[in-house]
Amino acid sequence: MTPAIRKKLEAFGPNLTPDMLGGTQAMMAEMNNGMHADTKVVRDISYGPDERNRLDIFTQGSPQGAPVFVFVHGGGFVMGDKHTEGSPFYSNMGDFAARHGWVGVTITYRLAPDNRFPSGPDDLMAAVEWLRANVADHGGDPERIVLSGQSAGATHVAGYLAHRREHAEGIAGAVLMSGIYDTMTCEPNQFAEAYYGKDRKGWGPASCMAGLLASEVPIQFSVAEFDPDDFHQQAAQVVEQWTATKHRLPEMQYLSGHNHLSPALSIGSDQREVERMVAGFVGRVTG
Amino acid sequence: MTPAIRKKLEAFGPNLTPDMLGGTQAMMAEMNNGMHADTKVVRDISYGPDERNRLDIFTQGSPQGAPVFVFVHGGGFVMGDKHTEGSPFYSNMGDFAARHGWVGVTITYRLAPDNRFPSGPDDLMAAVEWLRANVADHGGDPERIVLSGQSAGATHVAGYLAHRREHAEGIAGAVLMSGIYDTMTCEPNQFAEAYYGKDRKGWGPASCMAGLLASEVPIQFSVAEFDPDDFHQQAAQVVEQWTATKHRLPEMQYLSGHNHLSPALSIGSDQREVERMVAGFVGRVTG
Repeated sequence: MTPAIRKKLEAFGPNLTPDMLGGTQAMMAEMNNGMHADTKVVRDISYGPDERNRLDIFTQGSPQGAPVFVFVHGGGFVMGDKHTEGSPFYSNMGDFAARHGWVGVTITYRLAPDNRFPSGPDDLMAAVEWLRANVADHGGDPERIVLSGQSAGATHVAGYLAHRREHAEGIAGAVLMSGIYDTMTCEPNQFAEAYYGKDRKGWGPASCMAGLLASEVPIQFSVAEFDPDDFHQQAAQVVEQWTATKHRLPEMQYLSGHNHLSPALSIGSDQREVERMVAGFVGRVTG
Repeated sequence: MTPAIRKKLEAFGPNLTPDMLGGTQAMMAEMNNGMHADTKVVRDISYGPDERNRLDIFTQGSPQGAPVFVFVHGGGFVMGDKHTEGSPFYSNMGDFAARHGWVGVTITYRLAPDNRFPSGPDDLMAAVEWLRANVADHGGDPERIVLSGQSAGATHVAGYLAHRREHAEGIAGAVLMSGIYDTMTCEPNQFAEAYYGKDRKGWGPASCMAGLLASEVPIQFSVAEFDPDDFHQQAAQVVEQWTATKHRLPEMQYLSGHNHLSPALSIGSDQREVERMVAGFVGRVTG
């Protein structure tokens, strides 16, 4: 990352204020190079009964049995989308996959407070179910699905691995960027309350920590230098409990100069360190 | 890192066997591009009374007030050198600095079992003392010294920061690759015994952990995916105690595909991820 970009991201501060969120998105949209001319998109395929159970599929050429890279957006459980008209996000994640010769998939899911835990893991289950049955028609290999997510999206992917563990068997890998994994220790903010409910005593069963430690799916975690404190605490806890259990570190990537949003938003720009990191992992677990 | 290189490094296994150490060095020497044609070296300047108190200085052109990058080699406290005739290591670290327009310095230090803790911190102190007095004559800025070390070298740099804290004030940054930081929890192997003594009860005061947490010098830690378990445990402990104290993660870089030796040995090859990582940090703390 260039010192100028780092400086701007640092200046927003780590907290998830409207200025930080809007400012980062505007800045990163300007840096984005746009979708590759060869990338084809099929939008809004339904993978479940809800209006929000939709996915977009990105390919280049005519792939055959290619790895499938799925991205799950963030938004504090209560907002966000796979695609916003006029914005490069998060079609940039599908395009990234297509540029690498994989099948890219971006999904959206039911939101809180109307939908509560475990709606995230259940929607992931439905999306994987759909992909296992249909992705071959789009050139993808149902045996080589990699799930990725950012923030609430990472929490939903982690929730799927942890709470739908048998269904997740055979998933090739998971990329978890700046997620919250343990509801027993995370900050009880209004976003978490919208999804897990106001009574904190009910949060215990929603924790992903024990299930993540038990999962056999390879995981690449990352955390950003300018993530809020709570995400740093969660990352430290993953490192501590993983190493205590397995005597080896998890792959916990520390993203210097990045904030909570910028890693996924940097994909498709000339700041290629996150793209290299994720592509390296996907290549490894699907190779 | 390419999948082929990763595969070879993984095949050596994480343990510090002769095959792993020799095999990695031979493989990485072959990948090294050799010293840049414009790099000039002055070798074996004495910075202290012992035969091993020597340093080499690397520059390109005629730097003026440039950052100073110091590398301290590993070797289990009992062996190793800054330069071995016919080998690119560790002149590659000095050359790396010179290529970036900095003044590169590689040092060697007194070895165990003849010399015991705190000989490492004391030799670092003597080297810094010499640099503060003399590096300007070689184009370096004595106010912008970055210390780096690998394995026992990282432990010695950490020991200097932790146990000679006042002397280390004003050091611009430290790059600690695969070090052991807490003598109270590390494996009691024969290398550690040679340096800290056979009686483990005496090891407590040698721990760097508390002093590192108290130091104000910016630190970039790294640990390699194929480092032995003990180095993973130490890294997890740094993450845990640092985050518990400061509520933010340390910069702990996880080096995918690397083993205990390969990060420093990769510098000066076409595998540039470690070079980018270290150069980014040095640029940041001296910029």
